[in-house]
Amino acid sequence: MTDACTIDDIRTAARRLRGHARRTPLLSSPFLDDLAGRRVLLKPECLQHTGSFKFRGAYNAISAMDPNTRARGVIAFSSGNHAQGVAYAAALHGTTSTIIMPADAPQLKIDNTRALGATVVLYDRDTEDRDDIGARLAADQNLTLIKPFDNGYVIAGQGTTGLEIAEDAAALDITDADVLVCCGGGGLTSGIALALEADAPTLTARPVEPTGFDDVKRSLEAGEIKRNPATSGNICDAIITPQPGDLTFPILKRLCGAGLTVTEDQCLQAMAHAFLRLKLVLEPGGAAALAAALFSPGITTDTVIATLSGGNVDPAMFTRALDTVA
Amino acid sequence: MTDACTIDDIRTAARRLRGHARRTPLLSSPFLDDLAGRRVLLKPECLQHTGSFKFRGAYNAISAMDPNTRARGVIAFSSGNHAQGVAYAAALHGTTSTIIMPADAPQLKIDNTRALGATVVLYDRDTEDRDDIGARLAADQNLTLIKPFDNGYVIAGQGTTGLEIAEDAAALDITDADVLVCCGGGGLTSGIALALEADAPTLTARPVEPTGFDDVKRSLEAGEIKRNPATSGNICDAIITPQPGDLTFPILKRLCGAGLTVTEDQCLQAMAHAFLRLKLVLEPGGAAALAAALFSPGITTDTVIATLSGGNVDPAMFTRALDTVA
Repeated sequence: MTDACTIDDIRTAARRLRGHARRTPLLSSPFLDDLAGRRVLLKPECLQHTGSFKFRGAYNAISAMDPNTRARGVIAFSSGNHAQGVAYAAALHGTTSTIIMPADAPQLKIDNTRALGATVVLYDRDTEDRDDIGARLAADQNLTLIKPFDNGYVIAGQGTTGLEIAEDAAALDITDADVLVCCGGGGLTSGIALALEADAPTLTARPVEPTGFDDVKRSLEAGEIKRNPATSGNICDAIITPQPGDLTFPILKRLCGAGLTVTEDQCLQAMAHAFLRLKLVLEPGGAAALAAALFSPGITTDTVIATLSGGNVDPAMFTRALDTVA
Repeated sequence: MTDACTIDDIRTAARRLRGHARRTPLLSSPFLDDLAGRRVLLKPECLQHTGSFKFRGAYNAISAMDPNTRARGVIAFSSGNHAQGVAYAAALHGTTSTIIMPADAPQLKIDNTRALGATVVLYDRDTEDRDDIGARLAADQNLTLIKPFDNGYVIAGQGTTGLEIAEDAAALDITDADVLVCCGGGGLTSGIALALEADAPTLTARPVEPTGFDDVKRSLEAGEIKRNPATSGNICDAIITPQPGDLTFPILKRLCGAGLTVTEDQCLQAMAHAFLRLKLVLEPGGAAALAAALFSPGITTDTVIATLSGGNVDPAMFTRALDTVA
């Protein structure tokens, strides 16, 4: 095994998640097909527990821990969706969680993380180092760090999304399709890519990122890890990361098709179309793959499958999205 | 058989709908449980094709027609969800639909119904009689009228929602729960009540209506059909009808628990909670049962199951709902 995560790890994760994670369907709308000029299928992980796919990886990682270690508690860094996934998965396992969040994270995400039972520690992005804070807390309290994407159990958990896509695509006789994935550090994308390699090898995972924050796209082009010039300043906060992960990038490099980029306005429009046509709430970063499916010139397959990776959005941002179709 | 629709008709409908209607799950959120003070499970028919449960009944009715009759086309009166359900179900059966809509219906609904393949005939509410127009068109073109609720096939189609609720409740070992149903003419409520009678007889269907438009609640109390004093003037347009149906009322009377009422503001708040906690888009009438689950003092069961019956709402009304939690 050369990968941090194998298909066997993903199948083990699927067994752990059964009855705990939601088994999301593939959705569609004739209006979206018309708009895109191709068949568009959607994997609505906004309907997953805590409103994003992150619950899958967090639950798998915590479930896999030995009971004594787990009982001491877990810790995570996250501005949002990973935080909620870890907090809820920890609560379901009867253990505690500490989440280190930037003080400027969306208020809804901070409130939800607390309400799900986590101890939230806020830090100032400009003056404090979250790694220092986390290392100190972890050492003092013997907490286990659950990284958001560079963790084999997390990748395996996210990969269960890909097993479901493969199963549902087969039932629909889909043998040729790009599978577009909203991509931050690459946990979901690499997990889906591994699952497709095993169960739907003619489907191709492709990362979708915000324009200007396309570290994965550029890393794939260069064949080596490239960084983003900035890590803030885009409404797609859920998928803005400094660079691909050390564990995820080799998987992405081996298996993924070319990356795609979408603008903030395209993400807002995609949110509005999900509202109108799917009756789903998406956050900007969770709408990136749908935006690519609807608007990107870089797709050539007759069918495209897009992950809708999260829906944790404040009313103000959602209203801004609705204004694009008003 | 004394009912217009029996459990056998519902099971036949389920076979017709398999692979065509979406099999919606039961969803939940710990936040909604906390708010309601009881376990709350949601049946999200806003995720059904065309954004409401109406697709089920329309598809079943059109599927049950003999092919020669069906080939001549169908006709329906509706300014909303039934229109879209009939239009799309007709298109999927390769036949034509004519939908008679008021000329002052929202342009988006007219456009959607046309885009789903229907011929839309507009009439002037003040000067024209839609029944006359419909009767003339039906006679001239030999079209079959599909009524929105007083039709045994439509009731049977809506009843498939109840079969799914019964199956999922059994899997969760739920044996005592009120099943709250957003109720207009009673098609969905009567269909669900029949399905529960057969497959989950300890669960009780209860109609939920807007305050001031509670014809079903008052009819159940009186033991005979009562009318609403008005049929407009409430944001829950999808569930405002003059009175219970001649076919639906006997079923409702035999099987349902007491009706519940909710205010417009409670429906708007329920929409906001569905946005925040479930990542789902609901229209006011489609949020009535959730509003009752969260806010009604008339529920005593530890578990409540609420239908989320539709999500066809314009951005302005949705923004108004979000303002209740801003």
